Amino acid sequence: MTRHFVFKVEDLRSYVEAFFKKFDISQDDAAIAADILISADLRGISSHGIIRLHTYYGDRLVKKQINPHAPLTVVRETPNILLLDGENGLGQLAGYRSMTRCIEKANQAGLAMVTVRNSNHYGIAGYYAMMALKENMIGISLTNSQPLVAPTYGKSAILGTNPIAVAVPAGSERPYVLDMATSIVPIGRITVYEKAGKEIPTGWGIDANGVVTNDPIRVLNGGALMPLGGTDILAGYKGYGLSLLVDILCGVLSGASFGVDVGHPSENRGANVGHFFAAFRIDNFRPMVDFQHDMDRLIRQLKDAPKAEGHERIYIHGEKEFIKSEMYQKEGIPLLPEVVKSLMEAGRKVGLVFDLQSSGELDI
Amino acid sequence: MTRHFVFKVEDLRSYVEAFFKKFDISQDDAAIAADILISADLRGISSHGIIRLHTYYGDRLVKKQINPHAPLTVVRETPNILLLDGENGLGQLAGYRSMTRCIEKANQAGLAMVTVRNSNHYGIAGYYAMMALKENMIGISLTNSQPLVAPTYGKSAILGTNPIAVAVPAGSERPYVLDMATSIVPIGRITVYEKAGKEIPTGWGIDANGVVTNDPIRVLNGGALMPLGGTDILAGYKGYGLSLLVDILCGVLSGASFGVDVGHPSENRGANVGHFFAAFRIDNFRPMVDFQHDMDRLIRQLKDAPKAEGHERIYIHGEKEFIKSEMYQKEGIPLLPEVVKSLMEAGRKVGLVFDLQSSGELDI
Repeated sequence: MTRHFVFKVEDLRSYVEAFFKKFDISQDDAAIAADILISADLRGISSHGIIRLHTYYGDRLVKKQINPHAPLTVVRETPNILLLDGENGLGQLAGYRSMTRCIEKANQAGLAMVTVRNSNHYGIAGYYAMMALKENMIGISLTNSQPLVAPTYGKSAILGTNPIAVAVPAGSERPYVLDMATSIVPIGRITVYEKAGKEIPTGWGIDANGVVTNDPIRVLNGGALMPLGGTDILAGYKGYGLSLLVDILCGVLSGASFGVDVGHPSENRGANVGHFFAAFRIDNFRPMVDFQHDMDRLIRQLKDAPKAEGHERIYIHGEKEFIKSEMYQKEGIPLLPEVVKSLMEAGRKVGLVFDLQSSGELDI
Repeated sequence: MTRHFVFKVEDLRSYVEAFFKKFDISQDDAAIAADILISADLRGISSHGIIRLHTYYGDRLVKKQINPHAPLTVVRETPNILLLDGENGLGQLAGYRSMTRCIEKANQAGLAMVTVRNSNHYGIAGYYAMMALKENMIGISLTNSQPLVAPTYGKSAILGTNPIAVAVPAGSERPYVLDMATSIVPIGRITVYEKAGKEIPTGWGIDANGVVTNDPIRVLNGGALMPLGGTDILAGYKGYGLSLLVDILCGVLSGASFGVDVGHPSENRGANVGHFFAAFRIDNFRPMVDFQHDMDRLIRQLKDAPKAEGHERIYIHGEKEFIKSEMYQKEGIPLLPEVVKSLMEAGRKVGLVFDLQSSGELDI
């Protein structure tokens, strides 16, 4: 149980928007960047939310390591393909504009793919995939990221936690929204165990010799995360393969950095992150009502399936996040004291006063 | 160590072709179906190779549960999208023709997607993805399959082992070919442990109560396979999400069966399996030489990376299979006595004599 301070969503949103506007970012763009960060907190993926405002975005903007006014340059274009250059701008703006263009193209052509080079950390991958939902499309969003994951039989981090996000609309059921790192856990999870002085489960990470370890300190000191699947006997080479695939589609296909060359969001150099987006219309395959009907049937098959001992509910991907989001939208977002502090500190550096009133406290 | 009998690839190929021709299948189509089955054996994925000729294909053809002359009917078509109906024909023929059309469309439009309903077991997913390689395209191949995998927190099999295959060309390095079930292991792996009287590793399967078990018999008797990741603590819900995604794209998007309704290849009813294929040209994004150059660089970064204790080599996906294929192409394919017997038995039912001479024996 940790003490959290609860803030109204709209208060936090205004603060983050005001923060971005300190860099002469337009109101529209500031609103986009803020919405993507706040969405992560709303969906309970706080590791990718406003906790990062200070170090991943604010500090880099202050040091001019990210260009707040970067255009999104077209490198190549066909009716259904786009290669864009993010010109080292905010990953959120590159991501939002790229997916917007992807959806426009898919609306015309039926399906479209967009890759982006020379971008930065773009927040939660799922946000962009979900942009396709309201258009009755299936949306895909991938990004590469700085090396944290070792390939199977390797001992050092070569690949990122390279997430895969796919969003599919349903009918009366909530949409399916997969938003998963291709590692078992993000690095932040290891840090949490380290701070708590606890052992990590077998399979999350390896030490500097490539040996599976339960000691979070050994993972953090020259070790690496394991790909989804973990050890070889549990098919970790599949997670390694998915992580590599994301790097191919985001890094190699776009001409961005890949493998060990992708920059960390807090490093003192251009990260040259690559993204990949795809969208396609469902109604070119089947009438939307038929598709929705069958999506609902499949979802209900899963939710109504017999439960394992000790469990009362089977979830569909994205469901927990939708529930959390609805709750936080009403009741406010609980923030750890150190997150509030980092918001204050980020503001201080640009002359923005954090004068938000917490609407309550919560031990969770 | 088990005694295997080695047969020349071309001998096996001729036999399998002759087998299919017993059903008045044209020489071209028989050659396609045979090539897909033999490719699985060549690549070392023998569970999806000629071991299945008898039960998955032969018996169903004999009983007229699969239509050997099924056309592939166009249900919907746009310049870059196709929905096809396999009319309950051989999955291999539906898969080959669908991917051929997908590649033709991608050649014109830059990228294309094809879904297929009313098909059957199509062998190794990777075969179809790899068809894109010689066109300098990235190829994707997915199929749903009969329920064997339980969703996270569930106790019974709702989803298939639903494989994901993606093939990406490289330059001087071998292509990247991911071909993975979205479960940790296929059901055949559990059977192998059961026959050997051995315990299975923790995480491969659950018993009828949904509890993780090391007893293969409990998995086979009313239990289920676990999705990639395994238990919740190792992020098995991600593998569950990938399996569900494959079912959405293959089953729901095409109008084929999905979830518990997908038929088993040896069941006495139409399987109504669905497939999904995609292909896209690389040169619409980047000049092919640049892409190949960077693919080689990424592959070498991985292969040259420091090795974990006890390991001397890091593999790229598909690499082991290419090595095996080159070896078997030269030295012949080793078959277990029971596989030879099943080939004989399949032939016997259609009046085809198995008169192949083994070129040697091998204990592996």
